[in-house]
Amino acid sequence: MSQSPTLVSGLEPPYYTAVFTSVRPDHPEGYGETLERMHARVQDVPGFLGYESARTPGGIGITVAYFRDLESLHAWRDDAEHRAAKQYGREHWYERYSVHIGRVEDSYHHER
Amino acid sequence: MSQSPTLVSGLEPPYYTAVFTSVRPDHPEGYGETLERMHARVQDVPGFLGYESARTPGGIGITVAYFRDLESLHAWRDDAEHRAAKQYGREHWYERYSVHIGRVEDSYHHER
Repeated sequence: MSQSPTLVSGLEPPYYTAVFTSVRPDHPEGYGETLERMHARVQDVPGFLGYESARTPGGIGITVAYFRDLESLHAWRDDAEHRAAKQYGREHWYERYSVHIGRVEDSYHHER
Repeated sequence: MSQSPTLVSGLEPPYYTAVFTSVRPDHPEGYGETLERMHARVQDVPGFLGYESARTPGGIGITVAYFRDLESLHAWRDDAEHRAAKQYGREHWYERYSVHIGRVEDSYHHER
């Protein structure tokens, strides 16, 4: 059996989340490579705290990215390679998506 | 082919999100029935604006619930049947979960 997935936890509010919900085909061309590049790239953004992603096959995908403050979130939003990837995604992969930028004021974690 | 999934969109900030991330077995006993009951019940909470859910098989699940204000979010958090379901879930279903309560200050939607 594979290792049990971990979750982002233990962050001290306030922090920021970008909730990205999307509808796209199951395996769009070039998607995996771009995701891998973006995954590596976002690690270098000061104030990036982690992210989680889930996707129901044939359903929607939700990604939540965590940032220390709005400045770090905006730094990632405005990153040139990230912008290019988003532009490509809008044209080739995503049927639709929404982004919700929030300030987290409260959080808790449960572990059995 | 089934209908393309819709997303929660068009909400006017500020509003609130509860981001619920979890790790649990794929098909825990009694889960579907409880989910259905909670789904019906939350519709009656004034200020509830919708929710989305995604789950990677064998991976994590993410649910995002949207509320008009913190009062409506807390009304749902404190609902007696919801509390009982959460208690049961902690004991029987979830290996771990996190909740992040955020105030959404900015959002946008893209549709091809």
